[in-house]
Amino acid sequence: MIPRVAITLGDPAGVGPEVVVKALALPEVRAACAPVVVGDEATLREAAARLGARLDVEVVDETSLPRRARRPGHPTVEGGRAAYRSIETAARLATSDAVDAIVTAPINKEWVTRAGFPISGHTELLRELTGAADVRMMLAGERLRVVLVTMHVALAAVPRALTIDNVARTIRIADDHLRRYHGLPRPRLAVAGLNPHAGEGGLFGDEERRIIAPAVRRARRAGANVSGPHAADSLFFRAVAGEFDAVIAMYHDQGLIPLKLLHFHDGVNVTMGLPIVRTSPDHGTAYDIAGTGTADPGSMVAALLLAARMATSRRDAKPARAGAAAVPRARLTGTRRRHAR
Amino acid sequence: MIPRVAITLGDPAGVGPEVVVKALALPEVRAACAPVVVGDEATLREAAARLGARLDVEVVDETSLPRRARRPGHPTVEGGRAAYRSIETAARLATSDAVDAIVTAPINKEWVTRAGFPISGHTELLRELTGAADVRMMLAGERLRVVLVTMHVALAAVPRALTIDNVARTIRIADDHLRRYHGLPRPRLAVAGLNPHAGEGGLFGDEERRIIAPAVRRARRAGANVSGPHAADSLFFRAVAGEFDAVIAMYHDQGLIPLKLLHFHDGVNVTMGLPIVRTSPDHGTAYDIAGTGTADPGSMVAALLLAARMATSRRDAKPARAGAAAVPRARLTGTRRRHAR
Repeated sequence: MIPRVAITLGDPAGVGPEVVVKALALPEVRAACAPVVVGDEATLREAAARLGARLDVEVVDETSLPRRARRPGHPTVEGGRAAYRSIETAARLATSDAVDAIVTAPINKEWVTRAGFPISGHTELLRELTGAADVRMMLAGERLRVVLVTMHVALAAVPRALTIDNVARTIRIADDHLRRYHGLPRPRLAVAGLNPHAGEGGLFGDEERRIIAPAVRRARRAGANVSGPHAADSLFFRAVAGEFDAVIAMYHDQGLIPLKLLHFHDGVNVTMGLPIVRTSPDHGTAYDIAGTGTADPGSMVAALLLAARMATSRRDAKPARAGAAAVPRARLTGTRRRHAR
Repeated sequence: MIPRVAITLGDPAGVGPEVVVKALALPEVRAACAPVVVGDEATLREAAARLGARLDVEVVDETSLPRRARRPGHPTVEGGRAAYRSIETAARLATSDAVDAIVTAPINKEWVTRAGFPISGHTELLRELTGAADVRMMLAGERLRVVLVTMHVALAAVPRALTIDNVARTIRIADDHLRRYHGLPRPRLAVAGLNPHAGEGGLFGDEERRIIAPAVRRARRAGANVSGPHAADSLFFRAVAGEFDAVIAMYHDQGLIPLKLLHFHDGVNVTMGLPIVRTSPDHGTAYDIAGTGTADPGSMVAALLLAARMATSRRDAKPARAGAAAVPRARLTGTRRRHAR
């Protein structure tokens, strides 16, 4: 049974509709998942028409955008509202087991906020909608997985944002996530140091001794197969060479520099800690190129394939996965569903 | 005329002698440069014998190590002294134009200091020996060059170590160095931001606005072809794709994570700002594997080839490069020179 994946269209004025259409045109994507697009059907059809693509996909459309809100590169309040609603709907489909995973196309926080839904981002919104306690971001490619302890924090504020609890919880969430969704019964986790040479015994910084090493010890006691803190400069090479399944990075660029170097076009953002499977491409709305047909669908394709693989590998307490494919149609009542061609 | 390159043996108890012997056994290295090994001749011969390698090389030996100071993996004060002396000699050969470049095998600061020569590192020592005003480190591989504004500094101390002057001087030194030694008449330099997304307009940190952007403007006014600050996470991919000749990184791991990911075995350390050409492998003495024959010579090979290429491409005010090969023998008086076979 191939997994059902809900795909939100994201901001209708961004590159979301285009990369969704391009990705769904690929046979390997259609072979891996049964897609349900969540978003404005007219926007989707117009994107397909611009690309000259044939589109045969199920759509859940709870919105109805006026023409001016469907123009690529021209974000609107209506578009922000539609983007928000599609995330709500996709989350509901996933928490009710009508779909097995969700993949979200890019939104723009500013326009969603202007539409009356103040959000700090996709990830935080999904945490609230699903009632998850604590989430972390993983960036994943075929060659490397990185998990971030801190995200959008000024570099000067990173050291004080690190606590034993925060680092240990990140390790625990990553360990649990990789066991549950990635077919890794005992994930090999490596924790990066914060300072050059992981502090070289306290010579340059003591966060390794004060915070990171105690967090690693705590996570080991709790059963994680984790080591570190390791010198960050050589750690990513070691992970890519096969020594580790994922690297826990202390800050945004520590993890994203190596990830984007190897996976600029096909890196995937995975939210860990949710009760549902959720991935997304790691790019933004790119209003500047929306509608030109030049957006690279690589990251969306990778996000769909990874979501499908995670849904298939899923090992947890969720009931009755085998019967899920029969369920959704009944549960989709209350939404307008169509088949876009 | 192929360039003459002085190679220091480094710490005799480290992997230096082994990687030197292995590198000098390669035809491409011998075709690219005329080597002069500076260091203890017996140590060199013993390393060659352990490897079963034929060695035919000119040696400048101003030391004479007892047997116990020649044992791999067992550092000594005599070894530290010999390592120090060989750097002094190599610097003298280069500043007097007896050689065209120097390549230094790894030393251990602790043992050099115990021998009575307190140093903070190779680079600082060479700055003093050559009377250079200001030096910076570049790490170079075939695919990527990175230049560091700060080096061995705790991450928490990086923001306050950045000044407009420091960043602008780093750009200027890199610009001058790449023009002079790398055949790049107008090097394309890219400066990384410090914060995630280069601060995203001040949202996460203001060092981009306060320090980095003004430094870039100052360097541009002085004639450098430099841009930035750029978001660091995607910058290294862009440089590798060919958009830039070098990236100016704000801190150790920002530059070394991508460099080591691509060039773990063949990254080269280049000192910029010296009046001489100097490169070195980017690994340490590795006492733990010294004498086992397992040290990878890749970085030493790359350091030798790059030094030879830099000496050949050299474009500066140095007089009479064409006649240099005739000079050295006379100028080497006062040192014991031999031909090790």
